Amino acid sequence: MENIKHLANAIRALSMDAVQKANSGHPGAPLGMADMAEALWRGFLRHNPNNPKFVNRDRFVLSNGHASMLMYSLLHLTGYDLSIEDLKNFRQLGSKTPGHPEYHEVPGVETTTGPLGQGLANAVGMAMAEAMLANEFNKDGFNIVDHYTYVFMGDGCLMEGISHEACSLAGTLGLGKLIALYDSNGISIDGEIKDWFADDTKTRFLAYHWQVLEVDGNDGMQVRKAIEEARQCKDKPSLIICHTKIGFGSPNKEGKESSHGAPLGDSEIELTKKALNWNYGPFEVPQDVYDAWDAKASGAKLEQEWNDLFAKYKEQYSTLADEFMRRVNGQLPCDLAKKALAYANELQQNAAKIATRKAGQNALDFFSNLVPEFVGGSADLAPSNLTVNKQSKSVLPNALAGNYIHWGVREFAMAAAMNGMMLHGGFRPYGGTFLIFSEYAKNAIRMSALMGIPTVYVFTHDSIGVGEDGPTHQPIEQVASLRLVPNLDTWRPCDQVETLLAWDSMIERTSGPSDIVLSRQNLEQMPRDEQSVANIKRGAYVLYGQDHNDLILIATGSEVALAYHAALELEKSGIKARVVSMPCVEVFERQDSAYKEQVLPRAITKRLAIEAGSTALWYKYVGLDGKVLGIDTFGASAPANLLFEKFGFTVDNVVKLAKSL
Amino acid sequence: MENIKHLANAIRALSMDAVQKANSGHPGAPLGMADMAEALWRGFLRHNPNNPKFVNRDRFVLSNGHASMLMYSLLHLTGYDLSIEDLKNFRQLGSKTPGHPEYHEVPGVETTTGPLGQGLANAVGMAMAEAMLANEFNKDGFNIVDHYTYVFMGDGCLMEGISHEACSLAGTLGLGKLIALYDSNGISIDGEIKDWFADDTKTRFLAYHWQVLEVDGNDGMQVRKAIEEARQCKDKPSLIICHTKIGFGSPNKEGKESSHGAPLGDSEIELTKKALNWNYGPFEVPQDVYDAWDAKASGAKLEQEWNDLFAKYKEQYSTLADEFMRRVNGQLPCDLAKKALAYANELQQNAAKIATRKAGQNALDFFSNLVPEFVGGSADLAPSNLTVNKQSKSVLPNALAGNYIHWGVREFAMAAAMNGMMLHGGFRPYGGTFLIFSEYAKNAIRMSALMGIPTVYVFTHDSIGVGEDGPTHQPIEQVASLRLVPNLDTWRPCDQVETLLAWDSMIERTSGPSDIVLSRQNLEQMPRDEQSVANIKRGAYVLYGQDHNDLILIATGSEVALAYHAALELEKSGIKARVVSMPCVEVFERQDSAYKEQVLPRAITKRLAIEAGSTALWYKYVGLDGKVLGIDTFGASAPANLLFEKFGFTVDNVVKLAKSL
Repeated sequence: MENIKHLANAIRALSMDAVQKANSGHPGAPLGMADMAEALWRGFLRHNPNNPKFVNRDRFVLSNGHASMLMYSLLHLTGYDLSIEDLKNFRQLGSKTPGHPEYHEVPGVETTTGPLGQGLANAVGMAMAEAMLANEFNKDGFNIVDHYTYVFMGDGCLMEGISHEACSLAGTLGLGKLIALYDSNGISIDGEIKDWFADDTKTRFLAYHWQVLEVDGNDGMQVRKAIEEARQCKDKPSLIICHTKIGFGSPNKEGKESSHGAPLGDSEIELTKKALNWNYGPFEVPQDVYDAWDAKASGAKLEQEWNDLFAKYKEQYSTLADEFMRRVNGQLPCDLAKKALAYANELQQNAAKIATRKAGQNALDFFSNLVPEFVGGSADLAPSNLTVNKQSKSVLPNALAGNYIHWGVREFAMAAAMNGMMLHGGFRPYGGTFLIFSEYAKNAIRMSALMGIPTVYVFTHDSIGVGEDGPTHQPIEQVASLRLVPNLDTWRPCDQVETLLAWDSMIERTSGPSDIVLSRQNLEQMPRDEQSVANIKRGAYVLYGQDHNDLILIATGSEVALAYHAALELEKSGIKARVVSMPCVEVFERQDSAYKEQVLPRAITKRLAIEAGSTALWYKYVGLDGKVLGIDTFGASAPANLLFEKFGFTVDNVVKLAKSL
Repeated sequence: MENIKHLANAIRALSMDAVQKANSGHPGAPLGMADMAEALWRGFLRHNPNNPKFVNRDRFVLSNGHASMLMYSLLHLTGYDLSIEDLKNFRQLGSKTPGHPEYHEVPGVETTTGPLGQGLANAVGMAMAEAMLANEFNKDGFNIVDHYTYVFMGDGCLMEGISHEACSLAGTLGLGKLIALYDSNGISIDGEIKDWFADDTKTRFLAYHWQVLEVDGNDGMQVRKAIEEARQCKDKPSLIICHTKIGFGSPNKEGKESSHGAPLGDSEIELTKKALNWNYGPFEVPQDVYDAWDAKASGAKLEQEWNDLFAKYKEQYSTLADEFMRRVNGQLPCDLAKKALAYANELQQNAAKIATRKAGQNALDFFSNLVPEFVGGSADLAPSNLTVNKQSKSVLPNALAGNYIHWGVREFAMAAAMNGMMLHGGFRPYGGTFLIFSEYAKNAIRMSALMGIPTVYVFTHDSIGVGEDGPTHQPIEQVASLRLVPNLDTWRPCDQVETLLAWDSMIERTSGPSDIVLSRQNLEQMPRDEQSVANIKRGAYVLYGQDHNDLILIATGSEVALAYHAALELEKSGIKARVVSMPCVEVFERQDSAYKEQVLPRAITKRLAIEAGSTALWYKYVGLDGKVLGIDTFGASAPANLLFEKFGFTVDNVVKLAKSL
């Protein structure tokens, strides 16, 4: 019989060596989880190191991402494009082995992890995507979508609230092909967890309707047996509680928090290798160990089998097969932009005074006919966010047919699971909540941006326009805060035309996420010529007064009509103000400088920005001499129209401020 | 026997009427929970309507804050300063009855609720504060601190992740005097919850080591019996699952989501009142019902009893009694500012090149001797945040003696529970995590600010200076994002002197929360005269070159030394640059305009702001002609010094940029 402990020790040795060389990193978790990893990766994981994107691969997520050297060791040992030199460059500038596993940067890493609990929620999204895609494309005898999603996680992940949201939902939905292995080592950074985390996790997950198994996680055979059992349970997700020792094998640091986040030290590494009977130098792995780990041949065979199956599938279901490949490759249906622009011009001719959340729903009705990969949803605010469209069909437990997800009141898990669906492929998820509760999901939104994936967020009830619900529900700084996130496009459209084209832009974007910020209240439609309609997608444009050079009024969303009417009023006093609508600051910033100068001529220094939210970001556009009409305090509970008046959002006040410049 | 259902119906009638009159609000939950509320408030709650701040009152939190009319009805009926006219003004501008219960705005409201799950976590913090304060001040025969904390919550609260964090911790700590009543009505906004929330909540809470009871929540006697049982269980928190019907009594909307968030309509109200046998007009409550609810006399008696007890306590423990009153009244020890300034000047004379997180720990050592109400903690990052000080003693389960809380990896619950401790009184909590994970707690930080309470947040590892952990752990937009929160002071000190005075300011602040943003890496200490040391507390000051008027370099935190050295370098080329250190933008903004002009003379338009984070907010200070050296993309995994170089944070680059102005 193979010495599986010896094979696991290869992970331990590489992890210790890399952390030591980097003089930075986390050895404790890789040492503790090496046996779990060996059992899963050598015993079950279906993947192809030569093609990390093999469509039907099992997904593996390392939710406790600080154990990155576990992941890199696995990728290296099984034959991914990650050399021993790469491991030696662990945590160095420009290396393929960053401190935490990063999607895009490391072949074989399915999602970026580190912020605890989110990898677990990503995995829930991946398992949902697998089940939903299988539902849509599999045919009798053709399970072209048929894989498991595995996730490793630690105590930290299970303390985080998102673990509750994600696992409660996974249990409710009955995600049978989700298998979570919990590295239960009883140690967190502050020490022995018993004084701050005493959950009976088995009972907790039974309450979520999971299958729960419990093993010695440092016994690879026990772990194998449990994974086998987990795979057999098709109607529930499985949790395998793996009792391990952090820093396994280290004579002086095993079982201690001191092994967690710092190099073991040369002498302790020596002692550990000796204790593990690993008699090799730094970064040295004997050929027989490499051979035993190598998954290139088995991976190529797996993919070939799938290719053969898919070829037959294509013979029988040619259209479906093409559509499947289009979907999993993330190609958009063609002519989207053209159709959207035509419809926008049609809407421009058919003015409507509606809330932009309603305009958003209309946009969804339009696009959902064109983009079948749309999966909608809301964190229990479907009737308020208006995220349901005419094509929507609720995704229900067990069957998981449908394209609309009732996420429950779980904003954070919704965002992270949408990231997981996006990463899985085959879908374009969007999900809604009130703008204020974007804060509950904030770090998952950031992770979409960091990974550069086009998850779409729908945030309605976007200002004091919320009205009576009051300051707990009224966004003030949220739009600005979203604009600060690198690589995130934030749209705040002013009417149905801007809303439609904002949606078009968000769908067409592939290099990062977008959010759209929509009003609760009805908004007047603005007049535009065809050129202005087309310019909406440039992020900002002159809505009124292209030849007006006395001053510039810049506005977004619900304040655009206000700026427009103020400009008309100013004209009566002979002041020629141009109105710039800026639905997306980020997209405008990406325009060439000629266009930017055309919209905001440098020579016009009299500038007033108007937005019912934080003023701070607008100084970039109005300068030291300009003014901003915004809100830098909390809102209040009252009918919306009274609040706008109270906070100075009236034509009179805008005119007064403009004249004061 | 009293007709308790009839008394509960008073809540129902007032709630329906107020929502109808406002034409806005949430009738479903008050109708469903009226019997629970009657049972608790008339059967058990120890409070004094004439003095909502009675020290030893039971705390009551309505975590599902949209049921605000339940709360307002209770306050009105039991005799708080909330008239029937106030109820008629529900949700109107300037009323005492805003859409969601707001601390400060409504007498008797213990905490602002609405963002789901946070009220529950506030309640956990209150129960912790009660136990810890009792530990510290109670003496044999003198239980001067001895009350329960009750919380009402709904399905939404229990879906939110924060419910896991808070309840897991409450169970681990064994908070016997925390009693949660769960309004389990099976309905959320999207409809029947079974398809998205199927938890076995009883089992879930058993896993957290709570006592769990289950009753018909529309049967006031069953609820009474359960509360009695809950009160007897002293070593575990209790959950009472109350099965109720949302919209109870409404013939056409009971049990339906349509009763949740919109007025019932006049005719349905009529039908409902008829069904409830409530034969009174809008806002009409018969005197016998008022009499049965009135808690003014019993409340006055309770407080008098406590006053008598405390008087005797004071006879025996005079110093302790004075200290207790100081603490619960939130008065700071005297001379704090003077002592801090003296120590700051001492530090100025004893330069040290240390990380500001280390300087923060030293500051805590200093202040913890002076401020015994300090309660420290960290979300499992004590050794990294350096939030432990020399006086720290871990708060352990059951006993809860001590002053340092191991919150576990639970940033959101930590923040919300700190708010609860702060609201309870007797403590000044501060809690730490990595700056990047402020995002996990974002909305609770906002709630501190909205409530205007001085919770203190310690955020370390504040920029790319994090180094090897990489972009998942490197803040970019987080400092800016915190600065956007109204009424939150964000400090980013540059050395041990600024750090000490930042801490001083945060402690002295009583009208809102503060956060302090600290470096992982060592920072050079800056030279200063006594005036400059004193000016630190003004938020910004001229660190170097008061008479230099060629250009201004504005910097914070780790970039101040860079600006300073660049100024010295520029001087060699004859360019006289002043260096402004701006550790707290918000405090600087509150200074008079003369001081602001003195620091940032309007005449100097050549300005360069330097901060290793988002550039956006700095344009307010540099204008259209200035420049900002910052970072608007994600970081990278590498040693910190290489990253600073890569992103242009070098003296050479600052000099180059300055010259380009």
